[in-house]
This record gives sequence, structure tokens and C-alpha cells, in this order.
Amino acid sequence: MEQMKVVLADNEIPRQWYNILSDMPTPMSPPLHPGTGKPVGPEDLAPVFPMNLIEQEVATDRWIDIPEPVLEKYLLWRPTPLCRARNFEKILDAPVKIYYKYEGASPPGSHKPNTAIAQAYYNKAFGIKRLSTETGAGQWGSALSMACAMFGLECRVFMVRISYDQKPYRRLMMAAWGTECIPSPSDRTRAGRKILAENPDSPGSLGIAISEAIEDAVGNKDSRYSLGSVLNHVLLHQTVIGLEAQKQLAQIGEYPDVVMGCAGGGSNFAGISLPFARDKIHGKKISLVAAEPASCPTLTRGPFAYDFGDTAMTTPLLPMHTLGHDFLPESIHAGGLRFHGMAPIVSHLVKEGIAEARAYDQIETFTAGVKWARSEGVIPAPETNHAIAAVVQEAERAKQEGKQKVILFNFSGHGLIDLSAYDAFLSGKLTQHRLTDEEIERALKSIEGFPKP
Amino acid sequence: MEQMKVVLADNEIPRQWYNILSDMPTPMSPPLHPGTGKPVGPEDLAPVFPMNLIEQEVATDRWIDIPEPVLEKYLLWRPTPLCRARNFEKILDAPVKIYYKYEGASPPGSHKPNTAIAQAYYNKAFGIKRLSTETGAGQWGSALSMACAMFGLECRVFMVRISYDQKPYRRLMMAAWGTECIPSPSDRTRAGRKILAENPDSPGSLGIAISEAIEDAVGNKDSRYSLGSVLNHVLLHQTVIGLEAQKQLAQIGEYPDVVMGCAGGGSNFAGISLPFARDKIHGKKISLVAAEPASCPTLTRGPFAYDFGDTAMTTPLLPMHTLGHDFLPESIHAGGLRFHGMAPIVSHLVKEGIAEARAYDQIETFTAGVKWARSEGVIPAPETNHAIAAVVQEAERAKQEGKQKVILFNFSGHGLIDLSAYDAFLSGKLTQHRLTDEEIERALKSIEGFPKP
Repeated sequence: MEQMKVVLADNEIPRQWYNILSDMPTPMSPPLHPGTGKPVGPEDLAPVFPMNLIEQEVATDRWIDIPEPVLEKYLLWRPTPLCRARNFEKILDAPVKIYYKYEGASPPGSHKPNTAIAQAYYNKAFGIKRLSTETGAGQWGSALSMACAMFGLECRVFMVRISYDQKPYRRLMMAAWGTECIPSPSDRTRAGRKILAENPDSPGSLGIAISEAIEDAVGNKDSRYSLGSVLNHVLLHQTVIGLEAQKQLAQIGEYPDVVMGCAGGGSNFAGISLPFARDKIHGKKISLVAAEPASCPTLTRGPFAYDFGDTAMTTPLLPMHTLGHDFLPESIHAGGLRFHGMAPIVSHLVKEGIAEARAYDQIETFTAGVKWARSEGVIPAPETNHAIAAVVQEAERAKQEGKQKVILFNFSGHGLIDLSAYDAFLSGKLTQHRLTDEEIERALKSIEGFPKP
Repeated sequence: MEQMKVVLADNEIPRQWYNILSDMPTPMSPPLHPGTGKPVGPEDLAPVFPMNLIEQEVATDRWIDIPEPVLEKYLLWRPTPLCRARNFEKILDAPVKIYYKYEGASPPGSHKPNTAIAQAYYNKAFGIKRLSTETGAGQWGSALSMACAMFGLECRVFMVRISYDQKPYRRLMMAAWGTECIPSPSDRTRAGRKILAENPDSPGSLGIAISEAIEDAVGNKDSRYSLGSVLNHVLLHQTVIGLEAQKQLAQIGEYPDVVMGCAGGGSNFAGISLPFARDKIHGKKISLVAAEPASCPTLTRGPFAYDFGDTAMTTPLLPMHTLGHDFLPESIHAGGLRFHGMAPIVSHLVKEGIAEARAYDQIETFTAGVKWARSEGVIPAPETNHAIAAVVQEAERAKQEGKQKVILFNFSGHGLIDLSAYDAFLSGKLTQHRLTDEEIERALKSIEGFPKP
């Protein structure tokens, strides 16, 4: 009987997160205050985030202890299994071993709770009573809902109106965990009311929802805002994925040639790859590949520049690969990857040549995902299908080159709540779109004249 | 850090299923041919099931080897973790330790693949090319779809029309695995056409769908029918759950006082409890409790009698607890528990006093399920909520009695595809219904004059 997976016992869970800021070969540019053009200080962020998370955002220690109460919640589903995709390997018929970290095992079905649990804990410890956030397709909102339920925090999620109406399942998930989920634009905030006054039927956007969530949070000393990707502390919390994978691979005497993950805001790719980036910085030969959608090719076609994290221009200016904060990605089914920017850490790694990026069309990602479901069982999330498409491409390359390769990828979540996307694909209704140079030039106009990192 | 779960490595998976027929203290009554009133022989079943499964249905060996290709598929998600519900224990504040076997970890999210994989394998080995089955809410249909995709079998699922229309997610899941899912009644079979001729808008029923699936299967030498519960071989395949749990509990030096599972057709309850029933038969003190819906109280209020397994009276007469094959259970959200009968093995164990049954109202089951989701994370399937309600009751009893108890239950599946049920509960739209004696008497008229077991 061939081994299909490596599991870790509770007491083998990593006790610390890995902070790549300690190992960056070149310094990262700081976030800037858009008004002054100066680096933002902790006090600028204090109304938005609790101070313990702000400290974590700028920490430079290599290892940061995972608090005991966070570990206890992690243990509800972590350590996650490291699996070998032997059935998928047979289909590909290429000289590759494919390992994946299965993050779909968490209660909401994605990697998002790794940071949701941590953020809920730190807010609770700081005396906060309510968290506000935004959600597009709903993965992040549902993860934070669960985390807040567990730590006895109130949770308020502003959900993009069109998703609220069209994707009821994730909103029902949030309700089951006790969250108040509000379609955005709403009449709860100035930002929302302004939009509704102009267009009562507005379908909403992630940009509007972010503005509403931040406004809702900062108005009250007992409440803070929470973000599910992009920021350093979010990526930090996700490193538990890669650290577990390193332990598991070591147990079977393997080390990957390539580590892959899909990339929207960057937290899932960072989660699996940052501990391996550390190895690479210290001389190990390994490829780290972020898989992004061809319709939102932030890393492959956007410049490294200062830009806002949101379309409403309420965040600090972040140094990152970006298509411009006015860029409105096509409404592909991988809602989690529709972000104009990219985590500064991931952007910096790509700029430095430590990580690389590849873009995939929607149709090739679903083609890969259906093959996966019919051989390995789990129906992947549309986001995860981007990583699987990258694996398929890598396997083809290995075959052409006649090289043996060990591939590791992050299986960021299952697709049971995204089945309508599979329906669209199987019934031939999916379209694909590669941006033209003109479209990208036009989108980048929104950052003209911004400071350069 | 407290231990939250026990995991087993791939090489610790059980290599054999446990067959309780070898240990039954009294002989079970045989299934009867409804025409002759004589016990059915293998040849009667040959057009419906492959001979290797028919042999398994009547086997009396204590241990039956799990074929290597079945083990390999099991390893995609098995062994499943044995978890300790420490957060839920805190809420209950009772002198109990609660362990659960998490079967929601499988790709379709329930325990059903344990037998789907085995049945697909045996049919494939027997040279069958296509399986037909019926499905109500869709748990079974989706599990068999996945299994057929993995073994390269065609799969045809007749899905009750009203579920097909109202619960699109499970039908989309089946499509992702390549299954042809047909709303029933359909024009594919005589049985379906007859119903449609009388009522073109028929919402369908499980009875009709069974008739269609059997008719579709038996007409062709390359196709067979597959059933997801009730039969001996189905329960046999599910014993992998209880066998794993026994290994896991032994590793931490625990043994349960009570083993619980929800019961519809009986396979999930049997899966966790049969290996413990063996211990009980050999003298161990332990309670085995099946939790059923108060609106379909087969074990608690139905007599032990001969009855058909389906409403269309196409199956052999089975010796079981039944409410009569004409009984139409209320359309509760726990669709998997809406069955008028019960597995003969489970019925026999209850008749012999080895297992017992308790019934729970829909509202108390959802109350328990929401408490669970908000403390332990996973949103349980509506069926699973029955087991959790039983755990809550057992914990209260322990508190009243001042007794320490170790409870083990089968967490049969997650509820991510059943969120509309939670929506109905949280918005106060759920109703509950306890059957009156008159209703039960009326339902039992359909088995008047049948032979007695």
C-alpha cells in the first residue's frame, strides 16, 4: 500500500510563526501616509487595528510565538494533512511527485481561519468587543465569523451587494456563526449612504465595502477593523501552513523543487512559500511560483509601485505590484483573486527574484480542477484551481525537459460553496479574457504621480 | 496545551471490515421474496447487484479484507480524526468527555463514500460499467458519483424532482464528478413515465426514484443498482469508522460509556457502533444509542415487522423496524433520516436490547447544532445535529446523576450544503411535529397481513 499522506499529531504543531522580515535580503519600502508622503507610524493605524497587531505588522523578530489560545483553536483542524496526489500524477503521466497541503479541512473550508483566529484573539486580548470587515465572495467573512464566535466577539461583515444576493450560502454560513452580514452599500455608513443616494440599485464593490467596514470600525473605541490578506501580520499567521509542510516533508525525506500557490492578496501563496523563501535566501535551490488569474495579472503585468490598497483610497500607500486602485477585474469565479494589488511582502519577493509569478486563464484552471476532482476526489475552490493549473504546466515542463521534479502546492480550499462556477464551466458558459496592453495602461493612470518605492 | 484529537497514520488504517453477523447472539430473520414468501436467494438479487456484493451481503466471516484499491481511495481522507469537543464540553458544563469521529472530512463531506468506494470497486471488479442509484437530498448520489469517477464507472442518479429543483448544490457536485443526474419522475423508465402521465408536475419521491433506478439498472447486463444504506454489506463497509475509533481511543487509554449516531437507514450509526456492539455482546458494559427524528420515529415507535424497503414495493421484504412503506415523513431538513424503515442489522440489535433509540425534535437538533458551530467551528449536517442533540441530553443526564461519562459519537457530515436549513431555523421558520398514535396506526396499515419475523 502506497503512502498517500503525512499527518502530524497535535503536539507536532508549530509553536511559532515565521517572520520573513527578519531574512529579507534588501529592505522593504515602508507604507506611506497619502497626505504627508511620510512613512505611517503605529499611531496612524491605532484607530483601525489594535496595537498588538500593529506591533506585529512591523516586528522584525524571526520567530513569533503563537499564543496558546490560538494554538488550541488551530488544533480543531490543524495540523492539516500533507497529501500525495498519486491519482492526479497518473493522469499527468509526467516525471513529477505532487504533494499538497490540504487547507480545505478547516470548518469554513479554506486557509483563511489561520489568520482569522489569530486576529480575533489579539483583538480580544486588547479589549476589543466587535470586529468589522468586508467580504467579496465570502471566504474571509465566513472565516472571521467563526473566529469571532469562538472568542466571544461581535462580528459585522459588509458583503458586496451582488455577492450577497447571488451567493447566499456564504452569507448563511456567517449567520450560522452569529455574524451580522450587511449588504454593501448600506445605510449604516456615510460612505454607503453616499453611494446609495447616487444609485439606490448599486451592486456594490469590494472598494465600497472596505470603506464601509473601516468607517464602521473606527467610529468606536470598542471596535476595530480586520483584513484577510495583504498585510504583513496576515501573511505571518499563514506561515503555519509552510512550517507544517516542511516538517511533514522532512519526515518522508523529501524537499520540493517547486512550491506553488494561487495569489490574490497573497496570503495563501505566502503561507506555503515564506518558510521555503527563507531557505532560498540562505542558498537553497528552489522555485516559488505564484499563480494568478490572467484577467487580474497583478504580479505578471502590473508595475511595482506605491498604490492604495482599496479603491476608495482610505488605506496607506503600499509598495506593491499593482494594476492601479481603479482597476476593476472581470467578475471571474475565483472571487478571492480579484484584487488590483498584492501583498507588499510577496511583491518584494517577486521584485527581488526570490519568487516568480505565472498567469492562467479561467478555462484552463477549471479544466485542471475538474480533472483533479475526478481523480483525487475533492472539488477544489476556483482559486485553488489556479494553483492546480500551475502544477499541470509544471508537470508538462518536467516531461519536456525529462527532469524529475517534486512539486508542493497549497490546496487553499474546497469548492463546495462555489459549485455554480463548475456548472458554468461544464455547460460551456465560462468566458476568458486576457487584458490588452491598452487596458492595463488605462488602469494604471490612477497611480500616475504617486511616489515611487 | 490540551490534546484535541488523535490522528492515525496511513499504515494504521484498518485492513478489514467487521461483520457483526458473526457475533449476533440470536439469528436474524432472512429477507423474503414477496411473491413466494420464501427467503430470497442470491439468484433473485443477481440482476440488481453484482454477485461479489451479494456474497458479502450474506457472509458470516467475522473479518472481511478491505481490497487494496479500496484502501488506497480511503486514504485520500481516511483515517479520519478522532476529536475531543473540549469547547462544547465547556458550554455543557457537565461531567462528560465528548469524543467524535469526524466523517465530514471526506470530499463530499459525509460518511457515505466509505461504502460508495467499496461498491464502485466491487462492481468494477465484476465487470459492470454503469451504476444507477436514487438520491433524495443528494448525499448518497454525490458520494457514489465521486466513487464512480475514481473507478472509471458511469453513474446515473435519479434525484427526487423537488430536491433537484430546490437543492441545486448537490446536483452540481454530482455533475462536477461527471454523473448524469436525472430529475425523477423521468421519461427514462416505465415507472417514471407512468407517474408523469398521471401528473406531469409530480414533485417525485424517494420511492419513485428507487423504482426508476432499479428499472434502469436491471435492464442491462453491464449495469447494476447501488444502495447507500440499509443492507448488510453497506453497514459492513461503514465499520471502518468504529474500528478506527477503537484504535484511536485505545491510544489515549479511553473507552466510551456511550456511543451515539444519528439513524436514518442505519449505516452511519452502525458504522460507529457495530465494533462496540461486538464488545457488548462479549460482556462489555456500554450503551449504544441511535438518534432519530421525532417526525420519523422508526425505531422508537415502529414495530419490528416484515416490510418493503421502498414505497413502490420492488425490494424483498426486510425484517426491520418500520412505520410502513406507505409512510411519508414530514419534509424535515435532515433529508437523510427520512426513511420509513431501518437497516435489519440495527433493527435486530434494538430488538435484542443491544442498541437503543431516542427521538429528537427538529428544533432541539438545530439548537444543539448552532451551539456546536459556534464553539467547535464545524457547521454540522442536519442529520448530524440529531446525534449532537443526543449528546446534549446524555450530558444533562450525567450532570443530574453526578456521574462521569465518556461519550463517543459519529459526526456524520458537515452542513455546508444544507445552510438553507440553518437559515430557516435562525429566522424562526422551522416547525416541529411529533406523530400522533393515530398517524402511526394509519401508516402501519400498509403492512397489515405481511408475514411476521
